[in-house]
Parts: sequence; C-alpha cells; structure tokens
Amino acid sequence: MDIKEFLFQNDYSYLLQIAIILLATKLLGLLAKRISLPQVVGALAAGILLGPMLLNVVQRNDLIVGLAELGVIVLMFSAGLETDLQELKKAGLASFVIAIMGVIVPLVGGFILADIYNTEQDPEMAALLWQNIFIGVVLTATSVSITVETLKELGALNSRAGNAILGAAVIDDILGIVALTIVISLGGNKSGGEADTTLGGTLFGSGIPAVILNIAAFFVVAVGAAILYHMFFKKWRESSKTNLRRHNIVTFAFCLILSFVAELFFGVADITGAFVAGLAVSGLNKNEYVVNRFNTLSYMLLSPIFFANIGLAMTLDGLTGKLIVFMVLLMLLAVVSKVVGCGLGAKIMRYSNKESLQIGIGMISRGEVALIVANKGASVGLMSEKFMTPLVIMVVFTTIVTPILLKFVFPRKLDGSHTHEPTGMDTSILEKGGVNAGLELNET
Amino acid sequence: MDIKEFLFQNDYSYLLQIAIILLATKLLGLLAKRISLPQVVGALAAGILLGPMLLNVVQRNDLIVGLAELGVIVLMFSAGLETDLQELKKAGLASFVIAIMGVIVPLVGGFILADIYNTEQDPEMAALLWQNIFIGVVLTATSVSITVETLKELGALNSRAGNAILGAAVIDDILGIVALTIVISLGGNKSGGEADTTLGGTLFGSGIPAVILNIAAFFVVAVGAAILYHMFFKKWRESSKTNLRRHNIVTFAFCLILSFVAELFFGVADITGAFVAGLAVSGLNKNEYVVNRFNTLSYMLLSPIFFANIGLAMTLDGLTGKLIVFMVLLMLLAVVSKVVGCGLGAKIMRYSNKESLQIGIGMISRGEVALIVANKGASVGLMSEKFMTPLVIMVVFTTIVTPILLKFVFPRKLDGSHTHEPTGMDTSILEKGGVNAGLELNET
Repeated sequence: MDIKEFLFQNDYSYLLQIAIILLATKLLGLLAKRISLPQVVGALAAGILLGPMLLNVVQRNDLIVGLAELGVIVLMFSAGLETDLQELKKAGLASFVIAIMGVIVPLVGGFILADIYNTEQDPEMAALLWQNIFIGVVLTATSVSITVETLKELGALNSRAGNAILGAAVIDDILGIVALTIVISLGGNKSGGEADTTLGGTLFGSGIPAVILNIAAFFVVAVGAAILYHMFFKKWRESSKTNLRRHNIVTFAFCLILSFVAELFFGVADITGAFVAGLAVSGLNKNEYVVNRFNTLSYMLLSPIFFANIGLAMTLDGLTGKLIVFMVLLMLLAVVSKVVGCGLGAKIMRYSNKESLQIGIGMISRGEVALIVANKGASVGLMSEKFMTPLVIMVVFTTIVTPILLKFVFPRKLDGSHTHEPTGMDTSILEKGGVNAGLELNET
Repeated sequence: MDIKEFLFQNDYSYLLQIAIILLATKLLGLLAKRISLPQVVGALAAGILLGPMLLNVVQRNDLIVGLAELGVIVLMFSAGLETDLQELKKAGLASFVIAIMGVIVPLVGGFILADIYNTEQDPEMAALLWQNIFIGVVLTATSVSITVETLKELGALNSRAGNAILGAAVIDDILGIVALTIVISLGGNKSGGEADTTLGGTLFGSGIPAVILNIAAFFVVAVGAAILYHMFFKKWRESSKTNLRRHNIVTFAFCLILSFVAELFFGVADITGAFVAGLAVSGLNKNEYVVNRFNTLSYMLLSPIFFANIGLAMTLDGLTGKLIVFMVLLMLLAVVSKVVGCGLGAKIMRYSNKESLQIGIGMISRGEVALIVANKGASVGLMSEKFMTPLVIMVVFTTIVTPILLKFVFPRKLDGSHTHEPTGMDTSILEKGGVNAGLELNET
C-alpha cells in the first residue's frame, strides 16, 4: 500500500484532509496577499494543488461537499449582512445606470460566446439555452474589494469615479442575485434535470408563467419575513444589555430556514434566501458582534473548504483546444464587457470619457460571488463541470488585471495622502464590502 | 406524500435539520438553565425530541455525523485548552489521591455491574471483557461545573472541601483520558471489530505488549509535539502585535493532525489527540482570543449537533426489563461509587468525615466527557448502542442529584457573601472548567 493511500484513504482521513485544506488555503492566501492579490486566489490555488489536477490528496466526499454547501450559505448570508441598504439609497441614479449596463452587457456577451462554443446538449443537463444564459449570469458579478484597495493606494477612492464605483458595486450584487434567481428557476424547471426531480415541487408548479409567479411570490415572502425578522431582531437586541449567543444562533437558524424555504417551496436558489436573510439583519447598531461571530464560523472552517472545493472541482480532462479558445475569449470578454457596459452607463450619466473609462475598469474584477454562482450552476445541472476551469481562470485573471489597468487610468497622487483615509464619506462598510467573510478582512 | 416526508426527505433537508437542531438545543438548553440544570441536559433532550424516539424528524446522515465528529474534536480540544496545568501542579497530593480513588472505584464498580448484565457476545463487537471494562471507563469522568455553581451559591467554593474538589476534577479529567486511551487501544485491537479493520495499522502492530508500546509511544510523540508547538506558538503570538486569524487556523490544523496521527499510527482515540493539542496551547497569556474563537466555532454549529446527535442515538428499541434494571442500578452506582471512592481518598488524606462526604458528593456529577467517551465507544464497537440510553440517563441523573445532595451537606451561609467571589484563590479557569465550550458559558 503506498503512502498516499495509507494516509488519505481510511476512516480518519477527513481529519487530515480538513487540516491540509486549512493550512494550504491560509498559506497560499497569505502568499497571494503578499503579491497584492485577494486571498481567495490563494485559496483557489490551494484547492487546485490538493485536487485531482496536481497532488490528488483531497477527495470531494460527502463531508467536504456538505461543509462547502454550508460555507456558501454563510458566505452569502455575510454578503447580505454587510450590504448597507442606506448606502444603496444614497447611491443615486448614476450608480444605478452604471450597474444595470454593467450587468446587461456581460450577460448578453457571455450568452453569445457560450452559444457559439457550447452546442452539445447533454441529456442530464438543463436546455442549452439556459446553460448559455447561465454563463452570461456568471459574468455579471462584480467584486470591488480589490478596486477599493487599489484606489485607496492611489488616493482616488474619494474621486467622482470612485464614488460611482462603490455605489454601482452594491447594486450590481443585488442585480446579480436577481439574475441568478431567475435563470436557476427557469432553467432548473425547464430542464427536467437534477433540480426538478429532487425537489418536492414548487408552490405554483412549473412552466415559465408559474416560475415567474414562484419568484415573485418568493420575493414577497422573503422580503416580508426579512422585514419582520429585522423588527423582531432589533427589539430583541436592544432589550438585552449584553451580546448573547442566542442572538447568533437564532439568526443562523433564520438564515438556514429561509434558504430551505427558497428551494423547497419556490424553486429559488438557497443562496438567494441566505442573502435576503443577511439583508434582514444588516444595518443594525449592535451588528458588529453578529458579523464577527459569523466571520469566525466562516474563516475557521467553512469558507476555506468552500473555496478549496471549487479548486478541487477543476480538471484538465475536458480541456480541449476548443475549450481553451473559449477560455481565452471568456477572459477578454470579462474585461471588455464590463469596461464597455459600465463605461457606457457612465457616459449616459454624463461622466467624462476619462471618468467613464476609470469606472469601467474599476468594475472589471469578479470575485467570490462569480465563483459561488458558478458552483451553484454546476450543482443544479445548469453548467457543465468542464466550464469550471475556464470560469475560475477568468475570475483569477480579472482580479490580476484590474489593479494593473487601474494604475494606468488613475493619476497617482504624490503627496502621500493615500496613507490616511480621505474624509467626507463613509466607505468603511463598502471597503469591507461584499462576500469577504472568509478570507478578506485585515486581520488575517 | 405526507408533510414530514415532504419537509425532511429532500436534497435541502439538511438546511432545515440543522436549523431545527440549533433552535431546539438552544431553547431547551435555556429552559434547563432556568431550572438550574446544565444546558447540555437541554441539548440532549432536544436530540431525543427530534430523534427516532419522539418526533423522528432529524436523521443521522453523513453530514450530521461528520459535523458531530468534528464537534467532539473541538470540544475535547477546548477541554484541554481550558485545563490549567499550573493549577494541576498546585493541586497537591490530596487532590491526586481523591481523583485516583474516584476513578478506580467507579471503574471497578461499572465493570462488575456490566459483567453481570452484558453477557451476550455480539460477533461484530469487541470482546465482552473490554466492553464491560469500557462501561466502567464511562463512569469515571467527573464534570464539576454544576458543583462549582452550587458551591458558589452556597458560599462554600473556598472551603477546604471546595479546593480539594477543584483540584481533583482537573486530575480526574486527565486520568479519564488515559483510561479511555488504554481501553480503546486494547479493546479495539483485540476485538477484530471496526477499529481494527478500518485502520491502516498501528506502528507496533497488535497484541497487548504492542498496544502498550503504541500508547507509550503516542504519549511520547504527542507530548513532545505539544511542547514544541507550545514553544513555537508562544513565540509566534508574542511576536505579532495583534490577534491574527492564522493563529487559530494553524492551531486548529495542529489539533486535527494530532487527532489523526493518534488514530492512524498509534491506534489511540482521536479525542485523546485533540485533548493533548488543547493542553499544548493552554496557559498562554494571550489565550483568550484563541479560546473565544474556538468557542464560537463550537457553539454556532458543531457542539449543538454533537449533543443532539447523542440524543438522536437514543432508542427504546432494545430497552428490555433487564436493561431497565441495569439502568437503575447504573444510576445508583454512579452516585455511590464517586461518594465512596472520592470520600475514601479524602479520608486517606485525613479530611474529616464531614469533609470527605462533601468531597465525595461534589464529584458525583458526570457531564460532557462521559457522553463523549460513550459516543466514542459506540463508534468503535466497544459499547453496544443499546447502552446509550441508560448511560445518557445516568449522566442526566447525576447532574440533577448533585446540587440537591450538596445543599444537604454544606451549611448555607446566610450573610449573602456568595454574591461576590471569595478572594485568595484563582478559580476562574476551573469555573469555566472542562468541556463547556459549546453550551456552558455565561454568555448564552
């Protein structure tokens, strides 16, 4: 029996596998950080390193996959929790138009590209139409944490373009979730694939009108539940003098139940439910405690496993010449579609040419949300596993290219003012911004 | 399809099941606390309520069992982490003798009782001899958290008897772990049962001399690793100005690896490895941060699932008249053996009759460690599942009876001094004492 089999194929291997995942994601995450990349890139690399593509020591078993699924629920909950709805109201029409254009152009572009390259219908998967639209959806999600870091360094966070980017990014997240919800509901139900057969059934049955009714009903129920929980939770928190564990536990249960209800009764993605649950408790005064505890749960166990699990899913098996061409085009499209889409949105709102370019470039980088969406699609038969590798590489590429391009279009300020925060706007929440509960905070 | 099947038997049921476990363990835990019982009792009750004995809505699937296994690793790690080795040195000979006698008498008593009632050899299980010794081992573990609470209330924590109890309880934990280690190693290897067939093999093969060599080698390796990690971690912590996530992640990985190495190379229980790993980082200056984060990981997800999982394993199926008699005798034995054992130890060390009785009664209550040990035994074929119900009921019984008896033997002080801490000894660590990471701290 060889050493790898001895170590990694016994009843207790799960202990070693989790230990290795924790160490590798952290180590490569810190290395990524040292070369100014997000830690998520390192965590993905750890998954690739440990998975079938290279060392082949960690297998995707029930426990790993189960923990990764809980991980993505907690990540999306945190994304909702850290979304500032007040900021959203302030963001204004300009950010809104930029975000919408920045969703539409990549969505259409991604669909067209996929339509050219993904032409073989696998009977176990959703219809090709929905598969190809889904590739477009993956391209919509912006992650601005790396842009924020770079703009801070360049002292340009408080510029007109910087403000527009921050506002648009919040709206972008929500639009992305809505697009995901619609495509998963429609695609999942039309496919006759996994999503359909495993569910007990949705409230209004299947077929496009019923699905739209399901989605609408879900948002009514979920937003209603979120508002009620928000009111209850606010009162409960304010009535107790100290931070209590029960606050977090009941909130976690609320998140899990909303995720469950989304899937079972409405055929809506569980991560959409988790995101709405996060919004329900966002923006409260005493929130730091809740945010902090969920972050701990995430970074200590769940999110390293989630990101490593994505790396584990990557394979070179189906990587034909055709798929490599697709991958290269996808990387280009990811960059160009955001620059054109958001830039156009900015032009419509009368930003200067230079500012429009700055805004477009600032919105290029994809991040955790794109990975979460891709992962979800793969699990419901909306995305072939063979696209996982190109998509992950696209995400990593946009992350690397964004700060480089930003440095070209923003003039560097030389007075050293970037070392302290420009005053005048509260960017603290956006800087923490988005889905970073697992691997992105300063305390690493 | 009935409603229960609709809700609890689909691909997303795990979300609902975890939510229900979190809510039920917390709710019943708080109810237990209100009637002065440890929250663990409530968590067990939640498991019984949700499991096959009553509602039958939560099944023990791979994810639940996997999370429970991780939970027990983290619980035992926390037990080690919160053991104060300095306190141990101060405890002195009296506490040592009390602890040893309080381990030997229940061990022998439990063995004799089991030897009478457990006479049918199941071919899939370990030899009867080891099964019956194992019942004795389950009876050894003391949990003093409820005693500490009661003594505080009675203003008697700083009495001579109170001090002896606190010291003996720390030593008792370590002796219990050693006994568990020996029995699991010997029983597991002799049985030809699960423990043997699933392992890759131990370093020195099987057979009693080899097993003893394995255990000795494990303690040399584990203690060596613990000392090295302690030195490394101390330096690392002191060199960094802030609390960093990597401190916790690397420590968690160390814990998982030591647990893994214990099982794979030495045939020693994984929870022993986790406990030693906890000892490695105990007693450091900046430890609060580490303790706190592990507690969060534990109470937010893992330990509620662990305790509920024990309740889920309880069944009335095998509960024959004979087993009920065994259960009643076991409850009596649990009380009497600690009173006699620890009381005798105290008498040997020249405590007065009254003090000896006080000490014996203070050591009655079993707690989380007994449950953890029983659970481990069931999983390696050393304990039949049918004994789970009697053992859990024994644990709950000792927990209820201890404070009642304590109030008889300690004179209540009427000056209200129990509301503030008596000075002169540091009981803070012991009060947090033992395996309480999940459900026992003040902030509930």
